[in-house]
Amino acid sequence: MSAFAFTHGGPQGPDDALLDFSVNTNPLGPNPALVRAWHDAPLADYPDPHYTRAREALAAWHGWHPDGVALGVGASELLHRLARLLVRPSDVVLSLGAPFGEFALAVAQQGGELRVLPRDEGGLRACLAQPAARVLYLSNPHNPTGHYLDLNRLRAFAGVVIADEAYLPFMAAPLAVSPWPGLVRVQSPSKAHGLLGMRLAYALAEPNLARELRTLQPAWAIPSPLAAALEALPKQGDFLARTLPTARVWAKQLAQDLGGEETGLHFFTVRVGDAAAVAAALRAQGIRIRDCASFGLPDRVRVAARTPADNRKLIEAWQTLQIPERATSRS
Amino acid sequence: MSAFAFTHGGPQGPDDALLDFSVNTNPLGPNPALVRAWHDAPLADYPDPHYTRAREALAAWHGWHPDGVALGVGASELLHRLARLLVRPSDVVLSLGAPFGEFALAVAQQGGELRVLPRDEGGLRACLAQPAARVLYLSNPHNPTGHYLDLNRLRAFAGVVIADEAYLPFMAAPLAVSPWPGLVRVQSPSKAHGLLGMRLAYALAEPNLARELRTLQPAWAIPSPLAAALEALPKQGDFLARTLPTARVWAKQLAQDLGGEETGLHFFTVRVGDAAAVAAALRAQGIRIRDCASFGLPDRVRVAARTPADNRKLIEAWQTLQIPERATSRS
Repeated sequence: MSAFAFTHGGPQGPDDALLDFSVNTNPLGPNPALVRAWHDAPLADYPDPHYTRAREALAAWHGWHPDGVALGVGASELLHRLARLLVRPSDVVLSLGAPFGEFALAVAQQGGELRVLPRDEGGLRACLAQPAARVLYLSNPHNPTGHYLDLNRLRAFAGVVIADEAYLPFMAAPLAVSPWPGLVRVQSPSKAHGLLGMRLAYALAEPNLARELRTLQPAWAIPSPLAAALEALPKQGDFLARTLPTARVWAKQLAQDLGGEETGLHFFTVRVGDAAAVAAALRAQGIRIRDCASFGLPDRVRVAARTPADNRKLIEAWQTLQIPERATSRS
Repeated sequence: MSAFAFTHGGPQGPDDALLDFSVNTNPLGPNPALVRAWHDAPLADYPDPHYTRAREALAAWHGWHPDGVALGVGASELLHRLARLLVRPSDVVLSLGAPFGEFALAVAQQGGELRVLPRDEGGLRACLAQPAARVLYLSNPHNPTGHYLDLNRLRAFAGVVIADEAYLPFMAAPLAVSPWPGLVRVQSPSKAHGLLGMRLAYALAEPNLARELRTLQPAWAIPSPLAAALEALPKQGDFLARTLPTARVWAKQLAQDLGGEETGLHFFTVRVGDAAAVAAALRAQGIRIRDCASFGLPDRVRVAARTPADNRKLIEAWQTLQIPERATSRS
């Protein structure tokens, strides 16, 4: 199982100083107001064991019931807990497109069988035609392609739909979702706010399911400052409005410069032929990008745009590579 | 299971302003150096997924191998993970004295059967005579009585011994422990440093077992500042040396004033007859103490001493209570 555990994009060691285009974070972060909420939180006392204020604030923001909010320490922690709650040995778990590696690992730890279906009309139809499957996972928008699916189209699925919306805040205009009892929306706003070290995460779910999720979490598993930052989150929408349009423009420009496929988000993929070789060659020049082999796309790399100055360094390094012409064609 | 979940001593809501003698924390905390380490930690980037520096620092401090260190978000999170790793349905799990409620809950969630044995020579012999039991738990020193058992006496136990050493830092002179392969020492220094909101925790265990414990933890489950504070911990021994002797003196005085049983720690128990009634009467006066019914001691309360000014308020309130004379006798 450790094969899963080591395919993430983040730094692999404490002294890693590569210029990092593999981490899908807001290049205009961190959000100073959330940093302040984190630093102002009391450290001496136990957190409220029910984390009432944070859950109420998030619920009011999303028009959801506070009982339907479960807090987590990063999306990976929430996804592992969801797998423990929902996946029994030999259960079939569907994924529209390759899942986040931690979810695949969590399903394997539960003894479930993961079936990855393509993110197209055929894959969607195949999901809806499997009434025996109890869980359907999708990252939405999808990592790494940016593909976005209207969740309302999954209402007919008989089991639980887990929508991993880590990259939803980066979208300019996501569609409205009318919640239904089988839908769980996993939110991990650390990326959008440029605060990956905080591990901000929460799930919006039907109250009974959310309650069971909370029961599976040990007492006081959320440090007080993490709960305080989650509580402050609803007041931070203007930070995203101020920064993300710029990030999208930078990403669009970089995608054009590298021959990548624009997504409308801050990251995109580029067809390069042998992604592992391209990632290794850039790494030798002090730059990290994400080889998409672990997403089932061995001919693509994923690039999360940074500031224009950093992006220029990537373009310069990129021009030294031998990327076959046909690799970047869209056909 | 919620019966377990609501018997903790911490505040039960966000607006609870009782004078709290139920929380077993250092009255001279918080430790400013750990607060600084927390606030200085980077928030923008992913933590190192292996938390190498924190594990190496803790290992060097304890004379342990870094592979034998597993970090947690509070002792409760580590104990739940240990139960998942070690307890299979119908397993017998022994506890010398009533366990921390979260461990009992974790054993129940795994389908294990918990057997609580007394913390005396008879209980110790009964543990060692049960070779079929795979796990033995004890808090050491014991919460709430302060009873301390030389762990070396448990070497002959056939399974895994989980020593929950949350209160060990408060002891003036603990015995040396020579590690053996079946021993897991769970450390939660948040209490000793007066930093309950941080959820500092780690386990020292045989490397293979610690590795499995780490595998059961989702990726990046430790926020960066929590790892930074754990890394800084070995340099903070002098804070304990500066503060805890004073805390012990205050506790000794308060125990004498209330007719309690001194423990050499900062907390103690008092026999009061009907502990629930005494706790309720004090609560009506704005003071919280810990009713020990959930520890199987319905005639005792646990008091964690605070500063002398706070302690005087407890003594004054205590004098208004009708506590039967025989209740506080030591016979």
